[in-house]
Amino acid sequence: MSRSVIAMATPHAATHPEPPAPRPRARELGVSFGAWPTGADNAITDVPGVRVGHVTIWHGDHSAGEPVARTGVTAIVPGDLAVLFAEPMAAGTAVLNGAGELTGSVELREWGTLETPIVLTSTSAVGRAYDAVVDAMFAAGADEVVIPVVGECDDSWLDDMRRRWVTVDHVREALANATAGPVAEGVVGAGTGMVTMGHKAGIGTASRVIDGLGTVGVLLLCNFGSTRDLRVGGMQVGEVLHRERTDDAVTAAPTLDSGRSSSCLGVVVTDIALDARQLERVARRVGLGLARTGSVAHHGSGDIFCAVSTTNRQPRHATGVRTLHILGDGSLNEVFEAVVDASEEAVIDALFVADTVTGVDGHVVPGLPVARVLDLLRR
Amino acid sequence: MSRSVIAMATPHAATHPEPPAPRPRARELGVSFGAWPTGADNAITDVPGVRVGHVTIWHGDHSAGEPVARTGVTAIVPGDLAVLFAEPMAAGTAVLNGAGELTGSVELREWGTLETPIVLTSTSAVGRAYDAVVDAMFAAGADEVVIPVVGECDDSWLDDMRRRWVTVDHVREALANATAGPVAEGVVGAGTGMVTMGHKAGIGTASRVIDGLGTVGVLLLCNFGSTRDLRVGGMQVGEVLHRERTDDAVTAAPTLDSGRSSSCLGVVVTDIALDARQLERVARRVGLGLARTGSVAHHGSGDIFCAVSTTNRQPRHATGVRTLHILGDGSLNEVFEAVVDASEEAVIDALFVADTVTGVDGHVVPGLPVARVLDLLRR
Amino acid sequence: MSRSVIAMATPHAATHPEPPAPRPRARELGVSFGAWPTGADNAITDVPGVRVGHVTIWHGDHSAGEPVARTGVTAIVPGDLAVLFAEPMAAGTAVLNGAGELTGSVELREWGTLETPIVLTSTSAVGRAYDAVVDAMFAAGADEVVIPVVGECDDSWLDDMRRRWVTVDHVREALANATAGPVAEGVVGAGTGMVTMGHKAGIGTASRVIDGLGTVGVLLLCNFGSTRDLRVGGMQVGEVLHRERTDDAVTAAPTLDSGRSSSCLGVVVTDIALDARQLERVARRVGLGLARTGSVAHHGSGDIFCAVSTTNRQPRHATGVRTLHILGDGSLNEVFEAVVDASEEAVIDALFVADTVTGVDGHVVPGLPVARVLDLLRR
Amino acid sequence: MSRSVIAMATPHAATHPEPPAPRPRARELGVSFGAWPTGADNAITDVPGVRVGHVTIWHGDHSAGEPVARTGVTAIVPGDLAVLFAEPMAAGTAVLNGAGELTGSVELREWGTLETPIVLTSTSAVGRAYDAVVDAMFAAGADEVVIPVVGECDDSWLDDMRRRWVTVDHVREALANATAGPVAEGVVGAGTGMVTMGHKAGIGTASRVIDGLGTVGVLLLCNFGSTRDLRVGGMQVGEVLHRERTDDAVTAAPTLDSGRSSSCLGVVVTDIALDARQLERVARRVGLGLARTGSVAHHGSGDIFCAVSTTNRQPRHATGVRTLHILGDGSLNEVFEAVVDASEEAVIDALFVADTVTGVDGHVVPGLPVARVLDLLRR
Repeated sequence: MSRSVIAMATPHAATHPEPPAPRPRARELGVSFGAWPTGADNAITDVPGVRVGHVTIWHGDHSAGEPVARTGVTAIVPGDLAVLFAEPMAAGTAVLNGAGELTGSVELREWGTLETPIVLTSTSAVGRAYDAVVDAMFAAGADEVVIPVVGECDDSWLDDMRRRWVTVDHVREALANATAGPVAEGVVGAGTGMVTMGHKAGIGTASRVIDGLGTVGVLLLCNFGSTRDLRVGGMQVGEVLHRERTDDAVTAAPTLDSGRSSSCLGVVVTDIALDARQLERVARRVGLGLARTGSVAHHGSGDIFCAVSTTNRQPRHATGVRTLHILGDGSLNEVFEAVVDASEEAVIDALFVADTVTGVDGHVVPGLPVARVLDLLRR
Repeated sequence: MSRSVIAMATPHAATHPEPPAPRPRARELGVSFGAWPTGADNAITDVPGVRVGHVTIWHGDHSAGEPVARTGVTAIVPGDLAVLFAEPMAAGTAVLNGAGELTGSVELREWGTLETPIVLTSTSAVGRAYDAVVDAMFAAGADEVVIPVVGECDDSWLDDMRRRWVTVDHVREALANATAGPVAEGVVGAGTGMVTMGHKAGIGTASRVIDGLGTVGVLLLCNFGSTRDLRVGGMQVGEVLHRERTDDAVTAAPTLDSGRSSSCLGVVVTDIALDARQLERVARRVGLGLARTGSVAHHGSGDIFCAVSTTNRQPRHATGVRTLHILGDGSLNEVFEAVVDASEEAVIDALFVADTVTGVDGHVVPGLPVARVLDLLRR
Repeated sequence: MSRSVIAMATPHAATHPEPPAPRPRARELGVSFGAWPTGADNAITDVPGVRVGHVTIWHGDHSAGEPVARTGVTAIVPGDLAVLFAEPMAAGTAVLNGAGELTGSVELREWGTLETPIVLTSTSAVGRAYDAVVDAMFAAGADEVVIPVVGECDDSWLDDMRRRWVTVDHVREALANATAGPVAEGVVGAGTGMVTMGHKAGIGTASRVIDGLGTVGVLLLCNFGSTRDLRVGGMQVGEVLHRERTDDAVTAAPTLDSGRSSSCLGVVVTDIALDARQLERVARRVGLGLARTGSVAHHGSGDIFCAVSTTNRQPRHATGVRTLHILGDGSLNEVFEAVVDASEEAVIDALFVADTVTGVDGHVVPGLPVARVLDLLRR
Repeated sequence: MSRSVIAMATPHAATHPEPPAPRPRARELGVSFGAWPTGADNAITDVPGVRVGHVTIWHGDHSAGEPVARTGVTAIVPGDLAVLFAEPMAAGTAVLNGAGELTGSVELREWGTLETPIVLTSTSAVGRAYDAVVDAMFAAGADEVVIPVVGECDDSWLDDMRRRWVTVDHVREALANATAGPVAEGVVGAGTGMVTMGHKAGIGTASRVIDGLGTVGVLLLCNFGSTRDLRVGGMQVGEVLHRERTDDAVTAAPTLDSGRSSSCLGVVVTDIALDARQLERVARRVGLGLARTGSVAHHGSGDIFCAVSTTNRQPRHATGVRTLHILGDGSLNEVFEAVVDASEEAVIDALFVADTVTGVDGHVVPGLPVARVLDLLRR
C-alpha cells in the first residue's frame, strides 16, 4: 500500500507517535452492500491503471503542549500524467451540497474532461495542492496552462489548521508514491483528521465489477453527519449509539454532532466507456449512497463528486469527426446501482477502519464501536 | 377529504367498480420516521392555506373486455389563485434524475417564484393540465400570460394511456375541489395507476413541525424502483419480499421490477420564510428521502422536485427596494432534516396505504404485504 | 413555402383580411452577417431532412369591433416522427433569461436527446401544442410516454390572448404541413403577433455551411427588446429610430419599448455530428447573436434555446457499448461562429421581412423603416 | 492609483525596463457606451468601499536573451477582510464558456455569498493566489476554513509561464496595496500579459450610476477573441484592421487570431441590494457586453463572471428569521443595461489603454491602432 507517514521531529516524545493502526474493513466482518461483486481489492484501484497515493501528516500531542498535526493528502492518479494531459479522460461532476471546493469544476463541466490527477486534502491546503499539480503536469510535459482538480474537507476539529502543515512537497510526494493495489483507508492521507457521524472516519473505498461492462471504483473522503443519523446497512444504529454515548467522556465534544465541518468529497473512476453527460449522472449517484448511511447533506457540507472514465479519451483539442465507443444509456442502471452500493460501503468502511484519534485542543474522536454495531445488526 | 372518483358509465358491470379502499398509514401501524413531530394531519395541508384536490379516473375491467382507466389528477393549491398570481410565492426546483417533466421549470428557476397551482397527473395528460391551469388563472384574473407548473409520472402499466382519459375538465375539477385537512393517499388522483418498488403506490404525504420556525409539508407522486431495493425504516425488506414473491402469481409481471416507468415527482411546501436559493436546496433533499427507501434514481426516472414558501411573497414585478423576512442559512439544517424524514415517510405511506390494483392488459400490481413488512421490522 | 393562413369567417368584412405580405430579406438588400456562406435557402431547412410548418391565425379588425386574432403555430420537424421517437437525436438547451417556457427541458437536459418535433406558439397555447404533439407521436407509433418540446413567446400586445385562438387542430396542421425548402419569415406562424425592438417581427431564419463539416440552421421566434437598443450589423440604429419616432403616430404605444413581452425562442439544427454536451454549448451561442442586435435579455424575457444534431442518433434506451462518430471539440469554434452569425441574421431578417400590423385594442406595431436603416448603414 | 511594478534585478539592462505607459481611455477620446452616466472614476471602485490592487511583474528582454516576465496579480477587495468573513456579501456567478477557473465557484453557488477578496492572475499562479488569500483571511481573524475566489486567464503568449513568476508574496502585496479611486487599466496587474482581438489588452473597468438605486462597477480581465471579430461601439472595425494588418510585421504572430488563449474573467460589484439569485442573473449579462465587442466565446475561452452586492450582507451562519432589504425584480432591467454597457466599455477601454508589448520568444502584440479605429468610427 502507498502510505507515507510523515512523523516530524518533535522536541518531546509524542504520546501518539503515529496514527492508529487500521481496523478490519466492514466486509471482513461480514457486512456487505448490494448484489454486485467487488473487484480484487474492493478499491478504486481495481479499475485498471488507477493509482492512489497517501501522505499522512501526524505530529504532536496536545497534552504534552506540542503543536498538533492530523492532516494529509490523498492523490488519485487515473493514468500516466503525460498521457492524461495529451488525451484527457471523459469526466463529470455533481454537487449535492456545495459548501466546499472542487477546483477545476468549471472547466470539467464545460469540456467534460479530466486532464490532471485528483488531489484531496485539508481545506487550507487546496492552494498548495493546486500549485503542486501544476508543477507535476509541467514536469510531465504539459505544454498549455493546467487547471488542476483539487477537493477538500475541513479537518480542523483534530488538526491545528492554522499551522498549515501541508506543503507543496507533501502533495508532490502523494503524487509520486501513488500505487496500484490495496488502498489504505480510515486515518490516512487526506482522511487523517476527518470525522463522520460523530466518529473517526476519513478515507473509504470500494469497487464493483459489472459483468460484461467493467469495473466501477469509488473513493470517498468522509467528514460529515451527526451520530444520531448513522445507518449501517440501512439499520438506524445512530440513535442507539447516540443514547449510549451520553455517559461517555467523549461527549465532551458536543460539536461533533453539529455537522459543522460536514463534507464528503467523492471520486468515481470506471473503465466503462461513458461520456461526460453520463458521468455527471453517475457522479450524482454518490449522494444516494451517502443518504443510505444517514446523510441529510447539512448546510455546511461540501458534498461534491466527480466521475471519470479511463477508456473514453480524446486527444486534447481533437478536430474533425472522430469515432467513439460509448455505453448506451439503457445500460446505465447497472452502473448507477454499483455506484450507490459502493458509495454506501465506502462510508461504512471509513468508519469501521478508523480508530480513535486525539487531536488539537485535546479533542477526542472515538472510533466507531464496531462490536456494538455488529451486535445491533445481528439482532 | 377531497376525493372525486369518476366512475364512468360502462356497458358491463365492472368487476372493479371503484379503487380499493385505503389501508392504514405507516404511522398508524407504529412505523415512524425521524425525530421531528408531524402536523395535525401529517400532510402537506398542515401548512396553513395549502389545499389538495384529487380526481380519480377509474373505469373498466380488462377481463370483461372493457377499456381500462386507472389514472387521475392531483392539484396542490398553495393559496388563493388571484393572490398567487399577483403576489407569487418564492420557489425552487431540483432534479435528481430528469427523465420526466415539470413544466414551468425554466421560469421557476429564473424568477424563483411560483405563480400557479402545481398539478400532478399522468404523462400523457400534461398538455391538458397545462391548458386547464391557464384557464383557471385567467378566470382568477391573471392579466399576463401564465406559465403553469405541471408534473407527471407514467402510469401506463395499469392505465390504457392511449385512451388519454384525462380531460381539461378533470383538471378543473381537481383544482375546484381542493380542500384543506386530511389528504387521501395511495390509489387516488394522479397516484391511481402508479407503482413503486414492485408494489402499488401513488400519492404519499407527510409533514413536520419545527418548533419556532413553522411547518414543512411534502407530497409525493411515487412511481419508482424495484422490489429488491425497498428499505423500510432503513431495513432492507425488499430482498426478502423479492425472494418470497417467486412463487406468487403476480410475478407474471416481471417488468414491475425493471424500473421502466420509474419516477417520483415531489412537492415541498412550507410556511417558513425561505428564498428561492434556499428552496432549491430544500427541494434537493427530497432525493435523499427517496434514497433512504432504496431509490437509485433509474435512468428512466423523472425524479423532479419543487419547494415553495407560502410566506415569502412579493408583488409581481415589484420595483424598488423592498423589505423581506428570510430565515438565516444557519437554521436550514432543521428544515433539511424535516424534508428528508417527511419524504421517506411519504414514500412508505404511499406503499402502506395502496392496496392491490388490476389494470390494463390484466396487469396486477399487488399491495405491499404490510403484515409481512411489519413482521420483518419487528425482528 | 409551408404557410397556412386561417382566415376565419367573420360577420363583417375585415379591414385586415390577411397578414401583410413579406418584405425582402436583409440579404436581398445587401446586408450580410459574418464570413460563412449560407445554405441554399438561408434557412433552417437547409439542414437535410428538416421541415418547417406554419399555421397563421389572423382574424378581425379592432376598429370594426371584431375580436382580433394575431397568433399562430410554427413546427420544426427535424425528421420522420416514428424514427425520431425510435432513434432520438442528440440535443442540448441553454437559457439566457428564463422567463418563459420550453417544455421537455428537464428530460432534454438529462437524456441529451430530442424525440419529438419542436413546436413554437403563443404562451397561452403551450398546453394545446403539447397535447397535439402527444397525439402525433402516438399516431406515429410511439409506444412509450411522450414528452414534447414546446416553446413560446407572448404575443398579447397584438393578439387577444384571452380568446385562446390556437387549438389542438392548428398544431396538428402545422405539423402536417411542414415542408422542406424556403421558410416564410416575419408575420407568419408563431411569429404572427410578435414584436422586437419596438417593431413588428416574428419568425427569422438563417443558415451557414461549414465546408467539410456540414450545415447549421437557426430559426428564431423574435419578440424582445426596446427600439433604442437596436443594432443592425453592429451599428446602433436604434437610438436614431427612437428619436425619429417621437413625432410618429405609432408612439401612442409606449409600452412597445418596455420590454414587457420580451422573449426569443431559438432553435438550432445541424447535420454536424455533435453530442449533448456540445449542443448545449452551441445553444448558448444563440444569446451572443441576440446581444449583437442589442438584446440585454430583459427580466421578463424568455430567451431559451435548444440545439439538435440530426446525425447523432441512438436507438431509444440502447444498451451495450455503441460506436459513435462525434466532432472533436477542437472544431467547435467554426460551429460557434456560424451560430452567432446566423442568429444575428435571423433577428434582423425577422425585422426586415415583417410589415406593420394592427392588432387587439388598436395597437399598431410598425414595420422596421428598412429604407431609413439602410440609409444609416450606408453612411 | 494602486500599481506596483516589480522591476526585478536583471543581469543586463533590459530593453523594456517597464510596461508601456497607459494611453487615453475610450471615453477621453469621445467613445461612450449606453445612456447611463458613469461614476466619478468610471471604475469598479466607484462602488463605495471597493478597492483594487495591482502587482505587475515585468522582467527581461527576449532579444537580450533574458528570461521574460509579463504577468501579475489584480485583487478586488470589496470591503474590510475581517468584516467580509464575518458578514459575507451576497454573490452569484455565471459561465458563458467554462474553459477556465474561478475557484470557490461551487460554494459561491450554494451559499450565494462572497467571503474573501477576488483575485485575478495568470493561470499557473492560481494555487499561489489561493494560498495567499487563505493567509490573509486567517491574518484578518477568520476562524473557520476559507475558500478563496481566484480567477485566471492564460498570458503565456507574452509571459514565460514555465518560470512561474507569481509568488504568494506578490498576491499578498496586491491585497495590501489595494486602494479606492482610479484604477489602472491595460498592461497592469493580472492584465500585463493578456491579449484581446489580436491586440494588447488586459484590465478594463467601467461603472454606471443608476439614479435612485446605486452604482454598478465592472472590472474585466480581457484575453479573448480574434482581430476580425472586433466591434467598437457596434461597428465592425475588426475586418478592416485584419485586412490592414496583412502587410504588417506583427502578422508574424498568426496564432494571435487563433483564440487559443481566449478568456475573459469578469467581476461586477454593486451597492444595490441584490440577492444571490439576482446577482447570478446580473453576472450573466457580462457575456452580452462581450458579445457586443465581437466575442463568440471560443471553445478554449474561460468566460466566467461573478457579481457581488456590498449592501446585502448577513452574518455567517445567521440563524432565525432576519430582515433583508432587496431590490424588486421589476427594477432589474436598469441594472442589466448598466452591466452590459459597462462590460462593453471595459473591453474597449482595455484595448484603448494598452500599448504594444513584446514578450517571451519575441512575440509582439500590437496596441490597438486607436487613431485608425476612431477614424473608422467617425465615418
